[in-house]
Amino acid sequence: MSLLVVGSIAFDSIKTPQDEVHEILGGSAIYFSLAASLLTPVRLVGVVGSDFPLDQLHTLSGRGVDLSGVEVQEGKTFRWSGEYFGGLNHRETRWVELNVFERFQPKIPEAFRDSEFVFLANGAPLTQLGVLEQVRRPRFVMADTMDLWIHTQRPDLDQLLRRVDGLVVNDDEALLLTQTKSLLEAGKAIREMGPGRVVVKKGEHGGILFTQDRVVPLPAYPVHQVRDPTGAGDSFAGGLMGYLARAGNTDGASFKAALAMGTVLASFAVEDFGVRRLLEATPAEMESRYREYCSLLRID
Amino acid sequence: MSLLVVGSIAFDSIKTPQDEVHEILGGSAIYFSLAASLLTPVRLVGVVGSDFPLDQLHTLSGRGVDLSGVEVQEGKTFRWSGEYFGGLNHRETRWVELNVFERFQPKIPEAFRDSEFVFLANGAPLTQLGVLEQVRRPRFVMADTMDLWIHTQRPDLDQLLRRVDGLVVNDDEALLLTQTKSLLEAGKAIREMGPGRVVVKKGEHGGILFTQDRVVPLPAYPVHQVRDPTGAGDSFAGGLMGYLARAGNTDGASFKAALAMGTVLASFAVEDFGVRRLLEATPAEMESRYREYCSLLRID
Repeated sequence: MSLLVVGSIAFDSIKTPQDEVHEILGGSAIYFSLAASLLTPVRLVGVVGSDFPLDQLHTLSGRGVDLSGVEVQEGKTFRWSGEYFGGLNHRETRWVELNVFERFQPKIPEAFRDSEFVFLANGAPLTQLGVLEQVRRPRFVMADTMDLWIHTQRPDLDQLLRRVDGLVVNDDEALLLTQTKSLLEAGKAIREMGPGRVVVKKGEHGGILFTQDRVVPLPAYPVHQVRDPTGAGDSFAGGLMGYLARAGNTDGASFKAALAMGTVLASFAVEDFGVRRLLEATPAEMESRYREYCSLLRID
Repeated sequence: MSLLVVGSIAFDSIKTPQDEVHEILGGSAIYFSLAASLLTPVRLVGVVGSDFPLDQLHTLSGRGVDLSGVEVQEGKTFRWSGEYFGGLNHRETRWVELNVFERFQPKIPEAFRDSEFVFLANGAPLTQLGVLEQVRRPRFVMADTMDLWIHTQRPDLDQLLRRVDGLVVNDDEALLLTQTKSLLEAGKAIREMGPGRVVVKKGEHGGILFTQDRVVPLPAYPVHQVRDPTGAGDSFAGGLMGYLARAGNTDGASFKAALAMGTVLASFAVEDFGVRRLLEATPAEMESRYREYCSLLRID
């Protein structure tokens, strides 16, 4: 079934204790699309500046990502820079240049308005709500958010939470959003704010799914060398939503399998800088890692 | 098959942001025995002072724990006090009185020397080695250790590692022991020091098993209200070793199932102060939670 993502397209500059890269392709919508497109066709809505070399997007269209929702605006593309410390568990933003992303008002092309699965990547809640006004009758809408919006746009965020079926959120943000001290409390409290399915992401420690009747903890896939955690969360979301859209099903068993697939895509994302590893990963490699992950967790 | 544990018996004083308790029954061998005895008979070797009310141990013998290896020495019983902060993830030791435990030289009763499964709870490596001198031909020996011994008794610890089949160790201690920055590297490096099976414990985030050919991540069982994390690691070890001894098998599948059982016993331990919840837990409740945990992790 059709899958739409609305999010950022960016140039990322990333520093780790070992390496440093400048202005490589990044952004939530890019990671999401590369991950999800290993599973199903993807419709991408985003914005780039007039400085953006459009051939960078060819790989995406070659993988079944429909780029007809990518707007080119006069000005510079969104730029972000972050640095990772220690065991790469701690990240600090070095600088952000929103550029054309600052005034981004997503226009969903007519051909995308019938999308059945929709992912609203991290963005201003009002912008995310604006997307929902333009899609007709989505079957499953999932959103991401961040501390900035929790602090500054809470009423809009509360409104968004009442309108989505699922939320993916980091552990720190889950605690911040709910003013609780435990992730178990936080996950339940977020469900009471609206979304029936809540996924709290814990980075290298995996994640926890909260549904009406279950709390499902899933570990991360053990990656032997993490080189760059950037985009792990969006790749996770891409694997998850890609799996659901491919299955055309969001029941409990499918959702758990989708979480496992998200975990697998996140594990690819962190194995190299930026989107490199996601670009290399093949569907066969993905299915193989998925089967291995399920088998690791299977207790007979 | 027979299961022997050698470790501490203590009075614990514990403070959390919500509660405080004074001088309740604790110690590694106690937590281990209460957990393991839900699965199989346990042989306990430890020491108490002449101040110890022996009726406190009746519950253990009632549950199939053979106390004939518990030595009573003139003097005071080991006392420990710790305080937990925030979401109970951070613990500080307030004070320790080793008392009779300081000079503890475990004497393994003749009737215990044929033990097939042996758990060497945290203690000085030389003391742990002394136990191995006294058991005849154990099938599977697992040890725990801590930062103190890594810092101060490294040659003895290295000798111990060459003589055990398994090690359970906290994440911080695994990094300290191996001078690595990632748990994946640490787990592999510890295996090279001797033990074929290494379990790195991550508290609320579960644990990772390292074997010759696999790295198996397992999440913690989701506990809705953690009241006191004291003894979780020893209860985990008790569930793990109890399962193996009951199965009489240490192959890959049994070991993974044993890890799951350890996870379940740890989840009981943290639900109330000290050993309270472990005392209440029934075999039926344990099996039910075990089945639920396996089912949560099963991806179809």
